[in-house]
Amino acid sequence: MDATQERTVVSEVSAPGRVAAPDEGISHEELALAARNHGLPLEALRYDVTPPGLHYILVHYDIPAADAATWTLTVHGRVRTPLTLDLAALRALPPVTHRVTMECAGNGRARLAPRPVSQPWLVEAVGTADWTGVPLRTLLAEAGVEPDAVEAVFTGADHGVERGVEQDYGRSLTVQDATAADPEVLVAYEMNGAPLPPQHGYPVRLIVPGWYGMAHVKWLTDIELTDTPFTGFQQAVAYRFRQSAGEPGEPVTRIAPRALMIPPGFPDFMSRTRVVRPGPVRLEGRAWSGRAPVTKVEVSADDGASWQAAELTAADGGPWAWRHWHTPWTATPGRHVLTARATDAEGTAQPLTPPWNRGGFANNEVQRIRVVCQ
Amino acid sequence: MDATQERTVVSEVSAPGRVAAPDEGISHEELALAARNHGLPLEALRYDVTPPGLHYILVHYDIPAADAATWTLTVHGRVRTPLTLDLAALRALPPVTHRVTMECAGNGRARLAPRPVSQPWLVEAVGTADWTGVPLRTLLAEAGVEPDAVEAVFTGADHGVERGVEQDYGRSLTVQDATAADPEVLVAYEMNGAPLPPQHGYPVRLIVPGWYGMAHVKWLTDIELTDTPFTGFQQAVAYRFRQSAGEPGEPVTRIAPRALMIPPGFPDFMSRTRVVRPGPVRLEGRAWSGRAPVTKVEVSADDGASWQAAELTAADGGPWAWRHWHTPWTATPGRHVLTARATDAEGTAQPLTPPWNRGGFANNEVQRIRVVCQ
Repeated sequence: MDATQERTVVSEVSAPGRVAAPDEGISHEELALAARNHGLPLEALRYDVTPPGLHYILVHYDIPAADAATWTLTVHGRVRTPLTLDLAALRALPPVTHRVTMECAGNGRARLAPRPVSQPWLVEAVGTADWTGVPLRTLLAEAGVEPDAVEAVFTGADHGVERGVEQDYGRSLTVQDATAADPEVLVAYEMNGAPLPPQHGYPVRLIVPGWYGMAHVKWLTDIELTDTPFTGFQQAVAYRFRQSAGEPGEPVTRIAPRALMIPPGFPDFMSRTRVVRPGPVRLEGRAWSGRAPVTKVEVSADDGASWQAAELTAADGGPWAWRHWHTPWTATPGRHVLTARATDAEGTAQPLTPPWNRGGFANNEVQRIRVVCQ
Repeated sequence: MDATQERTVVSEVSAPGRVAAPDEGISHEELALAARNHGLPLEALRYDVTPPGLHYILVHYDIPAADAATWTLTVHGRVRTPLTLDLAALRALPPVTHRVTMECAGNGRARLAPRPVSQPWLVEAVGTADWTGVPLRTLLAEAGVEPDAVEAVFTGADHGVERGVEQDYGRSLTVQDATAADPEVLVAYEMNGAPLPPQHGYPVRLIVPGWYGMAHVKWLTDIELTDTPFTGFQQAVAYRFRQSAGEPGEPVTRIAPRALMIPPGFPDFMSRTRVVRPGPVRLEGRAWSGRAPVTKVEVSADDGASWQAAELTAADGGPWAWRHWHTPWTATPGRHVLTARATDAEGTAQPLTPPWNRGGFANNEVQRIRVVCQ
């Protein structure tokens, strides 16, 4: 469904976006999203590749009841040869596998003040997987993109209403991004060597290495080459950087640099405060950027007053996967706040105060882990 | 670790249990639990067997970094022959598979007033899986339970602090429950035919059909037969029905009857309000009870003012799995509240007003689905 097929439904179903009032607790609507969708439990940063049930998930509407036997992907619009592929046809093409760290564009939103009211992520909306499929550029070469095509519009099978607009989830990429060699966009049908789980797009999804999750259209059914830019809801209304509601805003694209630490020691059930014993503690975690390679991770054990460089291990997951880092720390009795920040090859370092925008997007404020040593 | 090994740590890490003030929104501490743990997205009620990443999950502390190659399970205490089994030894014993619906004892907690402050479940903390393993009674027969043994105490590898008490997660069953033929308790190493995912207890967990999730000890490392009842935190302090904080309370055991409906139509992203078209709609869902077979499911399309019996499909998942139900409905323009309730063979029907207790346990108030037909 392209933008012209999106419909307006009664406003009572679907309220405009808003930011929370000062001191407004998390609402039941936000909680209902948090109960459905979930982040990466931070101890799962230990895995190079995230097991599927631990990888963050954000589903806008319902997980569709997809049938792989009857599923088809169409490629049409400004192409010389429209294609209709079933799963067997897709699997018959030469596959490639990319390890990709994916992060929700709204990660960190719930820590902002004022808080944009939407999926209330803290810091955990991330995961890394090995995605296998066919390069999108292979399919587009087979279809033959017409010279006047400017964008490829991707439509998923998930259907719902958002801010009053009924829609199938849809996003676009420029033809340049869609056909690039690096990052190479995939039409993926496997995650970590197995068919995609339902919540990750079964049977087929888009993978756009380096971009926030909204670009990786799940339950992909249709690719349309267009000679005008896509104006659908998820492109022109949602996922834009805005300071106030009326602005057109700039689009959210690639992932800002971030480091996360595996919380050391063990937790209190309710507060998630960590307890560590006095003595040497290995601090470790992951860092990534969708803009340029991570070049530095710094760690602070005093809530950002001082920093020391962590050791980055080899980038053996490839350019689009997180990197492991570690550094020693000697825990001393008392309370500590641990934090880490990443810098990428473009020189961007994570901020200590959060960048605010009305959607809470690309919020890469540093993580803060409260630790009691006793 | 048995109760005598539980340690008290500084109270600043770990606050006493509490209920929320009137109109107190969900706190960041509750949100942090909701971001880690997750429920079943309600459309996933469509699957007879829940895919692992959609099954509800509740982890008290951290998911342990378990190594199947070095993992062992010990059976000791009041037995004639203490056992130490590795995974190969466990797999060499004759396996059985049971389909089991599991629900968190705290399901529904966040809808209570006042709200007990803990993992803030709405209605979705449920899932059904095929669990494969060795009957616990096989292991206990091999070890030879001494006549003076009264309980089996199960300890997991997850370690943390809760309400000021440092502990490995531990629970017990009476010898009678632990050795029963039906429900048959399993020491399980497979979920849906594959090794357990990390968050579901890899490599080995307990499965106690019919009981709330707290009994199904994950990352199981130790079974101790004791001649006195277990007084560990998760048995004597947590998971008790109490009206006030000082009471000893009654233990939470088997699952109260509940029906859930697959929300019809499609959702609004933020409010989760459903939109349906006018005309015939098939309403369907699942119902279960850990106490006795489900004998009746009733559906209301007018917020409980009137009810009609749904059709129950065959109980082909066995006695401990949910049953599918369905009933036709004709949607008419306007707003509707859909709900369903289950009754089991003991005659217990789901209440329309929620049973309250300080932990928010066994809350089987009926689900309410807001629908707009247009």
